[in-house]
Amino acid sequence: MPILCHPAVDVPEYVITAEDTLALAEHQHADHPQLALALRLIRNTGVSKRHLVQPIEQTLRHPGFEERNRTYEVQAKERVPAVVRRALGNAELAPQEIDAIIYVSCTGFMMPSLTAWLINRMGFRPDTRQLPIAQLGCAAGGAAINRAHDFCVAHPGSNVLIVSCEFCSLCYQPNDLDIGSLLSDGLFGDAVAAAVVRGRGGHGVRLERNASYLIPHTEEWISYAVKPTGFHFRLDKRVPTTMEPLAPVLRDLAAAHGWDASELGFYIIHAGGPRILDDLCSFLGVHPHAFRHSRATLTQHGNIASAVVLDALRRLFDEGDTANGSSGIIAGFGPGITAEMAVGSWVAAPTRPAPTRSATRQRIATARSHKAVGTRTPQAVDLWSLSPGTM
Amino acid sequence: MPILCHPAVDVPEYVITAEDTLALAEHQHADHPQLALALRLIRNTGVSKRHLVQPIEQTLRHPGFEERNRTYEVQAKERVPAVVRRALGNAELAPQEIDAIIYVSCTGFMMPSLTAWLINRMGFRPDTRQLPIAQLGCAAGGAAINRAHDFCVAHPGSNVLIVSCEFCSLCYQPNDLDIGSLLSDGLFGDAVAAAVVRGRGGHGVRLERNASYLIPHTEEWISYAVKPTGFHFRLDKRVPTTMEPLAPVLRDLAAAHGWDASELGFYIIHAGGPRILDDLCSFLGVHPHAFRHSRATLTQHGNIASAVVLDALRRLFDEGDTANGSSGIIAGFGPGITAEMAVGSWVAAPTRPAPTRSATRQRIATARSHKAVGTRTPQAVDLWSLSPGTM
Repeated sequence: MPILCHPAVDVPEYVITAEDTLALAEHQHADHPQLALALRLIRNTGVSKRHLVQPIEQTLRHPGFEERNRTYEVQAKERVPAVVRRALGNAELAPQEIDAIIYVSCTGFMMPSLTAWLINRMGFRPDTRQLPIAQLGCAAGGAAINRAHDFCVAHPGSNVLIVSCEFCSLCYQPNDLDIGSLLSDGLFGDAVAAAVVRGRGGHGVRLERNASYLIPHTEEWISYAVKPTGFHFRLDKRVPTTMEPLAPVLRDLAAAHGWDASELGFYIIHAGGPRILDDLCSFLGVHPHAFRHSRATLTQHGNIASAVVLDALRRLFDEGDTANGSSGIIAGFGPGITAEMAVGSWVAAPTRPAPTRSATRQRIATARSHKAVGTRTPQAVDLWSLSPGTM
Repeated sequence: MPILCHPAVDVPEYVITAEDTLALAEHQHADHPQLALALRLIRNTGVSKRHLVQPIEQTLRHPGFEERNRTYEVQAKERVPAVVRRALGNAELAPQEIDAIIYVSCTGFMMPSLTAWLINRMGFRPDTRQLPIAQLGCAAGGAAINRAHDFCVAHPGSNVLIVSCEFCSLCYQPNDLDIGSLLSDGLFGDAVAAAVVRGRGGHGVRLERNASYLIPHTEEWISYAVKPTGFHFRLDKRVPTTMEPLAPVLRDLAAAHGWDASELGFYIIHAGGPRILDDLCSFLGVHPHAFRHSRATLTQHGNIASAVVLDALRRLFDEGDTANGSSGIIAGFGPGITAEMAVGSWVAAPTRPAPTRSATRQRIATARSHKAVGTRTPQAVDLWSLSPGTM
């Protein structure tokens, strides 16, 4: 079965801290009637810093859709290759051994997509399949993993490169002043991530089953308004309530695989916001420690859209003590509202002695006994259950 | 092996004839220094009429990107469901029996894509996988077939719905006055197409092998410039020369399957323009009659982007005399320059007595003996070998 290898992730060099964000919001929206609410929502994301492809002064200016999209292309070409090289290195593969490239990005639009440029510049074979996905938003990280899984099953022995390039800051729209937009301005960050799904060999997550789920009649909850100024992100206040319908879906997926979703060895969950993580923890009945990698990516990078799951997974690899054979789940959430989910087992690197399963259980049990967990958002406030009148 | 069933195709009710197009071009570009060349190029496309989602007067006005994209969404929601219903009917499947929807369209941008709306409104299951592809342009029809094939192999017994929704007229840009744009204004048309790939049962093209090929260093030849006015189609004059490098790729694909690309039973080829078809015929050494369905779609609908291969395939079904077991090839071409190709065998409907293979051969032999073939472009002029100075 295909194995999702160690992802490579890079965040740009320009940093904006939570303090900077709050000060900026206070300054820019001093007259906004809901400033206090906006500040509270931003504070409650738990994001401590985000990385941007440009200095904040430039980010705040809207130079027009054309210029924005050109910046996307220039930045992508500058930043993606190094991450791809590291991902290939992690999977111990050369470009010539890759059979398909799945490129996911919702923050810039190019036709042809970057896949063509990557093939031409990085030594991939001309017969490499290209699958660019732009419209699954944050769920596209999970979708990329799942379609890579399918491809490797359909073409045994093949290898798929996944690239996620998300420059969310390039979708900043200075004139969008609704609460959802102000919150988004304080939540999203930029990142490039890549990972290889190997059809044979490798170590990491053995992909065993995948699924998708659309929560009925929520298609307006996360969307883009397409305007001459570019893509305008629209976030409905009901989005954070989506874990209630999705938790049973995750449970069912695990159960179909003979597993209990409350008792898995690892959880790689899209860190859309703090309540997504808090609710899912609670609905699945798992300790917040289980979601530590998702929380860490949210805290340190903000919501980096389709790159979240790859960044959280990278942290699991970096932690380095997942037991061979551990069961796990990967879930991306995005517009639709769509969940793209996978379950699989950890295949440890043979050269590195993995801790025993009982040691991992012990560690989780220890963590459960702690009241506070380091990376958890201190005040995971129920942001969106505020009365509609305040939104 | 999965079977690509009878596609359903619909073209909108507003018609523009070749004469209308030429008269309009003469009127609108009376002062254009290269008007004569533009008119000759348009005439040589062999397109006799095209169908549009709006009356031509409305099509010619640019109401802004936002309004254009809204029109795309309204028209897609109005026109896609009936075509999907017919495609499902052709495959004898209910919406509940579909496991994935691949939606391809490069002429409007929605996030979430129309897949979410279709699932909500047409009775598809919430766990239907969604794969929207926007950036493979005209090659996306072939890509959709190939990814559907892969999905059915990865998930045995599953069924995939392919939807292609191309309203090329909504990408008309009145201020693009280069020769490539004027030619495009006279070449592209609107259409909606859908088809089901059945994992088990059905009749049509049994999908046996697929491949992709990127012609090295041609990524600028077909592209979108993204501007506040929307997507601006850029067509390089070298595009029509691409069959020379692609013909050997098609030959190799057939050969890998044990077949001779010159001797197949059916050819479903992207009708990008007349020279694409003429050249490929010539390089593969097949009689123009073999490309009759591609020529017919070009003549009657213009280049309908990713819907071309589905429309040409529909004509093959409608013709109704493909012999059971006939070998065939499907190829879409688009930005990259990317070719998305598939080979497979015809599985005739059991209820309808299929003509014998020798009868089909006889028919082709007869057609070969004719000097002129009805639907062939009368003057397939080498459009793009005009000196660069004239372009």
